[in-house]
Amino acid sequence: MEQVFSYPHLFSFTKNVFLSMGCSEADATIATTVLLSADLRGIDSHGVARLSGYVRLWEAKRINATPNIKVIHETPSTAVVDGDSGLGLVVAPFAMKVAIEKATNVGSGWVSVQNSNHFGIAGYHAMMALQHDMIGMAMTNASALVAPTFSTERMLGTNPIAVAVPSGNEPPFVADMATTTAANGKLEILQRKNLEAPLGWIQDAEGEATTDAHALKNKGALLPLGSDKEHGSHKGYALGSIVDIFSAVLSGANYGPWVPPFPAYVPMPENQPGKGLGHFLGAMRIDAFRKADDFKKDMDNWIRRFRSAKTIEGYDQVLIPGDPERLFEAQRMKDGIPLLETVAEDLVKVGQKFNLSL
Amino acid sequence: MEQVFSYPHLFSFTKNVFLSMGCSEADATIATTVLLSADLRGIDSHGVARLSGYVRLWEAKRINATPNIKVIHETPSTAVVDGDSGLGLVVAPFAMKVAIEKATNVGSGWVSVQNSNHFGIAGYHAMMALQHDMIGMAMTNASALVAPTFSTERMLGTNPIAVAVPSGNEPPFVADMATTTAANGKLEILQRKNLEAPLGWIQDAEGEATTDAHALKNKGALLPLGSDKEHGSHKGYALGSIVDIFSAVLSGANYGPWVPPFPAYVPMPENQPGKGLGHFLGAMRIDAFRKADDFKKDMDNWIRRFRSAKTIEGYDQVLIPGDPERLFEAQRMKDGIPLLETVAEDLVKVGQKFNLSL
Repeated sequence: MEQVFSYPHLFSFTKNVFLSMGCSEADATIATTVLLSADLRGIDSHGVARLSGYVRLWEAKRINATPNIKVIHETPSTAVVDGDSGLGLVVAPFAMKVAIEKATNVGSGWVSVQNSNHFGIAGYHAMMALQHDMIGMAMTNASALVAPTFSTERMLGTNPIAVAVPSGNEPPFVADMATTTAANGKLEILQRKNLEAPLGWIQDAEGEATTDAHALKNKGALLPLGSDKEHGSHKGYALGSIVDIFSAVLSGANYGPWVPPFPAYVPMPENQPGKGLGHFLGAMRIDAFRKADDFKKDMDNWIRRFRSAKTIEGYDQVLIPGDPERLFEAQRMKDGIPLLETVAEDLVKVGQKFNLSL
Repeated sequence: MEQVFSYPHLFSFTKNVFLSMGCSEADATIATTVLLSADLRGIDSHGVARLSGYVRLWEAKRINATPNIKVIHETPSTAVVDGDSGLGLVVAPFAMKVAIEKATNVGSGWVSVQNSNHFGIAGYHAMMALQHDMIGMAMTNASALVAPTFSTERMLGTNPIAVAVPSGNEPPFVADMATTTAANGKLEILQRKNLEAPLGWIQDAEGEATTDAHALKNKGALLPLGSDKEHGSHKGYALGSIVDIFSAVLSGANYGPWVPPFPAYVPMPENQPGKGLGHFLGAMRIDAFRKADDFKKDMDNWIRRFRSAKTIEGYDQVLIPGDPERLFEAQRMKDGIPLLETVAEDLVKVGQKFNLSL
């Protein structure tokens, strides 16, 4: 049921698709790097499995392959970037570079982005800060799949938050999480295998908890982190809302139920208040707070102490955010990236549009 | 079982206690304002119920009533503040003012704080930004009560995150949440009433889910938001970790299991790596991103759209973060603040130390 492709092979194919769409060499390279970072890190739902979706958005003229991405408002530590309907995979790294430059100059940089599209995994953008000895943050809103506490209506996307923190000898701390109980990608796996979902991941059209993994097709919704009020779903709802506000209300993008859908066949919401979808990127220079070496020594100590915390019987070790993804990356860089048959077939079809073979 | 006190009455009593400890007039006023903001907003666990705890920390010389709070490192948009073992109720507003000043100058301001103590409710500090047309953020670490996913060991505090966002005609968006499934204050209520806790709030010494509200006394632990791995507890663990790192690793305060305990009778952890406990405060000027009026119009639209989202049968309305606390505040400012008999008795005893009557 799976085919394995080497990273260089998938990279070359994907880059050629972006080039065929009309992306510049530089844009195709960064878009491919960002997209495939998801496959490498084991977040299969956000990698090449989405390539055909990006192509269809481009065909529907919702993605501009040659955008004029620019800063439209700024202060020494903040900016708003207009993505000109470009690939989020290209727009977000542009915006993160602006944040890093501002952090270099004045200690921190914070960039809200309008008029963009889906940007792949949030973790990639946050991790751009690491090599500069900075803490990186990345958030994005996304089309509405999540119901607020007490609601039956889909009002928020899975709106992820990523935070990357540099360390010394230990690998960095990299948290990258949807603000829902379960990411949509996990639900898609259950749908594909016709398995039931754990109670607490989704609700049906009436707002009742359900194990039907297909409930979203029948007006169900994903649940905010916390699952129900008694277990703190109002906190997950608040976190998703903060991502929405920072990414879109602060930039002038669309927010809440008005965020453009990823599937190109879904009509755009009516009366959209803003432009495209929004991201929020941030960078803080470590030595804008204390000596980077001192920080890294403490961060190593933090990581080691948490990793050696006593475990529940049956578990080997407490994990540090970023551990599982780093193991995936090392393994897949070496052994290749396994793709589901259906994903590989989809890529073959995408290739045919541009006379490219997988 | 409850006694009701007017806000001015409790304010005057509490301020006199802080003055009796040796706080300056200005410090006693701000400390009282911050502490009582919890009682007003319905977060009873963080208000005057803790006054005796602060007094005992002062008696144990862990709180300095006349601190020399100062910026020890800074860039145009960042700073580290040394709280000189002062009341967090005084140190955090000082740090937030620094953040606001930096945001006024360069668009945003971010302040990490070392050598502080408990700062009351995070929401108060975040809300200081609102009157300046800024988004405010506040976090703090706290002594370890929470077990990471897969662990039996208490490694993190309930580490809250607060975000306050200004709006136009609507009341502001104010999220203020522990990064655990349930705040410790909610558990304390169940303990006092000898009720069981919902599954998912706490685990026992072996890391098994339990409904025993007293499990924390027997080496149990609070659970991170998400409750268990299947429901995303690794996300709550990551959020609590981010708060710990921003508040303490970035400032040089104590982190993880080394954070000083609130009860003065609990011995300090050995081999502490830093100074006191830590906070992280931030402010972003709205018009550092876009015209404040445009933002507020969109924020009003955001709030109204979410408030009017379709509800699950039996619920009147979808709430906006900050709604419940604002209703509490309006009611308690008018009708007074109800205190449990035990809390009132505790205050009487505190007063006796300083010849003050409640």
